[in-house]
Amino acid sequence: MDNFQFYSPTEFIFGKDTESQCGAYVKKYGGTKVLVHYGSQSAVKSGLLGRVTASLEKEGIEYVMLGGVQPNPRDVLVYEGIELVRREKVDFIVAVGGGSVIDSAKGIAVGVPYAGDFWDMYEGKIPVQAALPVATVLTIAAAGSEGSPSSVVTKEDGMFKRGIGSDLIRPRFSILNPMLTCTLPAYQTACGATDIMAHVFERYFTNTKEVEITDRLCEAVLQTMVKETPRVIADPNNYDARANIMWAGMVAHNNIVGVGRSQDWNSHGLEHELSGLYDVAHGAGLAVMMPAWMEYVYHHDVMRFAQMAVRVFGLPMNFANPEDTAVQGIRAFREFLVKIGMPINFEQLGAKAEDIPVLVEKLGIGDGVREGFVNLDKAAVTRIYELAVEASL
Amino acid sequence: MDNFQFYSPTEFIFGKDTESQCGAYVKKYGGTKVLVHYGSQSAVKSGLLGRVTASLEKEGIEYVMLGGVQPNPRDVLVYEGIELVRREKVDFIVAVGGGSVIDSAKGIAVGVPYAGDFWDMYEGKIPVQAALPVATVLTIAAAGSEGSPSSVVTKEDGMFKRGIGSDLIRPRFSILNPMLTCTLPAYQTACGATDIMAHVFERYFTNTKEVEITDRLCEAVLQTMVKETPRVIADPNNYDARANIMWAGMVAHNNIVGVGRSQDWNSHGLEHELSGLYDVAHGAGLAVMMPAWMEYVYHHDVMRFAQMAVRVFGLPMNFANPEDTAVQGIRAFREFLVKIGMPINFEQLGAKAEDIPVLVEKLGIGDGVREGFVNLDKAAVTRIYELAVEASL
Repeated sequence: MDNFQFYSPTEFIFGKDTESQCGAYVKKYGGTKVLVHYGSQSAVKSGLLGRVTASLEKEGIEYVMLGGVQPNPRDVLVYEGIELVRREKVDFIVAVGGGSVIDSAKGIAVGVPYAGDFWDMYEGKIPVQAALPVATVLTIAAAGSEGSPSSVVTKEDGMFKRGIGSDLIRPRFSILNPMLTCTLPAYQTACGATDIMAHVFERYFTNTKEVEITDRLCEAVLQTMVKETPRVIADPNNYDARANIMWAGMVAHNNIVGVGRSQDWNSHGLEHELSGLYDVAHGAGLAVMMPAWMEYVYHHDVMRFAQMAVRVFGLPMNFANPEDTAVQGIRAFREFLVKIGMPINFEQLGAKAEDIPVLVEKLGIGDGVREGFVNLDKAAVTRIYELAVEASL
Repeated sequence: MDNFQFYSPTEFIFGKDTESQCGAYVKKYGGTKVLVHYGSQSAVKSGLLGRVTASLEKEGIEYVMLGGVQPNPRDVLVYEGIELVRREKVDFIVAVGGGSVIDSAKGIAVGVPYAGDFWDMYEGKIPVQAALPVATVLTIAAAGSEGSPSSVVTKEDGMFKRGIGSDLIRPRFSILNPMLTCTLPAYQTACGATDIMAHVFERYFTNTKEVEITDRLCEAVLQTMVKETPRVIADPNNYDARANIMWAGMVAHNNIVGVGRSQDWNSHGLEHELSGLYDVAHGAGLAVMMPAWMEYVYHHDVMRFAQMAVRVFGLPMNFANPEDTAVQGIRAFREFLVKIGMPINFEQLGAKAEDIPVLVEKLGIGDGVREGFVNLDKAAVTRIYELAVEASL
């Protein structure tokens, strides 16, 4: 196990009707004027935003609203938010929505105290040094942004998707009410579930030896997703299955399952270019890219993939031919994805094989490699995109 | 799943040589004058205390020392610590040691700002309302106090063991260096491992339905302990096994594996009277009481005990007779405890059957019950103590 630091200071308030406590928690964490940041009008129509703002009013807390966050949130709205927060002297941001809204809120939070262009931080030119406090009222189990130190934003000019990571943007508190996720369409639910599983897989495939505790914790989250996801697809109002998925989504990405081990975020990287170029759902892109990546790299550590097959998907170990077990495990993952309604290849996603050179170019690898479980050069990522084109059951 | 709140704000610094960062972290969290609280002279002799105080000096942070914490920490030293902290105007407490030292430090932390007798809080007469900041440099994987909101102290007059729970006493930071645990005798190591497993079992046996994510997380910790504990008993210097156990110990007790479900702390309660009366190691007491409790309650939910047998101890499911699987699971737990050198009955622990009425009396049940997975009246706890007398393989 490697040395590590772990810090997850977010206070989580989980369960039915918990959004009514938002105002009290803003007060507890010192907010006096709030930006309520949200996405589509559905949060207004459902009455959720009304319940959140009523809880602020109850505590005598002022607020301004900024809606319109799109999936794959854009830099344009972040700039607008920074302006608004400065003008209105807001000192606390509450994101009401899913990962996109939260990531947009985090972008605003780091942009406000920074004198330059917030995109400098997303491009890695300078580190995050300060941020306004952020909190969340989560409406979809997926990104894990409610407990994570990360944010991903897309620059509209060129559709470049880039991210930051800093403990400063871990939410002060996050309100998780699984009821709010019951109205999600099956497709979005499945996209979220895929994202959660990808967050674990990117930690699971490691070159660090002797990491039993985090291996087992990773498998715990994955086993839960394998059991609960088909249940909510079949019955969207299954509260308990929704609740298990929602908490699994946080556990998957606050890094408690990933400490002390090398991680590999190349699937996420390869997917970001896909959803950047086509503006497809991040989870759907991961359903296509994650198994393709697995197919390319599994030779590097056959026994780790066999472990996944046996422990996560419950397959029998083929002791005479562990590679067969590894391959069957990847196949079981694709079967699972198809079962929950996800695409598994370019065509089903709406991506085009002829764009592969563009995708590879945007990754900006040059003559180098993307480091990870297996280091990937240009030829390797090209092959992985090709495997994602060819994939079938 | 039940509604819940989860908050674990402690920053963890994990790995080799991390104690040298203690001073820098005290500074980060605003400490200017520190009480360094510790147990036996072994922390002095090993050079650990010297490294910790050197790191404080390096940051220009003043400190005073208070050693002498015993296993099952006593109220007497807590009173002395409160006096010392007030006199020396200490504003930060660093516990260097195991659960006993940390719990003693937490007692001092809540006692200092309270005008009355700190024992009022441990007796439940008044809630904790303020506390000095506490941090830890952990030397044994066991109590989970490095990340938990709890503290247990023993009142010397009558040997009453009582506890408090409050987010205010969650450590600001905890330094976990698995190397520090390599010198522990096998018996203490095994006691610690048993305590860790008990922390999980007390959350695992629940009446709440549909808690797949926390079930799986519980099992992840237990599976890790089943694998890693015999390895460190056989080879005390196995760093990786020590590291896995040390992180498992934190995960077992910061409540991430226990949220959203009813829990049952009766085994801990029954054990507290044992270790209070005989001053035996808490973990050894748990090795005797936990399986005895299981034997008494398993009829209440045979399938949950069968799940433990299959998922934690890898036993085959007896589909024709699930009760047999449940019983075999409890037996497997006892076999595991014997394998790591733990006692499993009163005689091996040094406790006496004729003291059972005294133990029962001290629990103070009266005509009521102790609530839990199964509610326990006086007759029930008497029977559990009897099962602990009779236990054998």
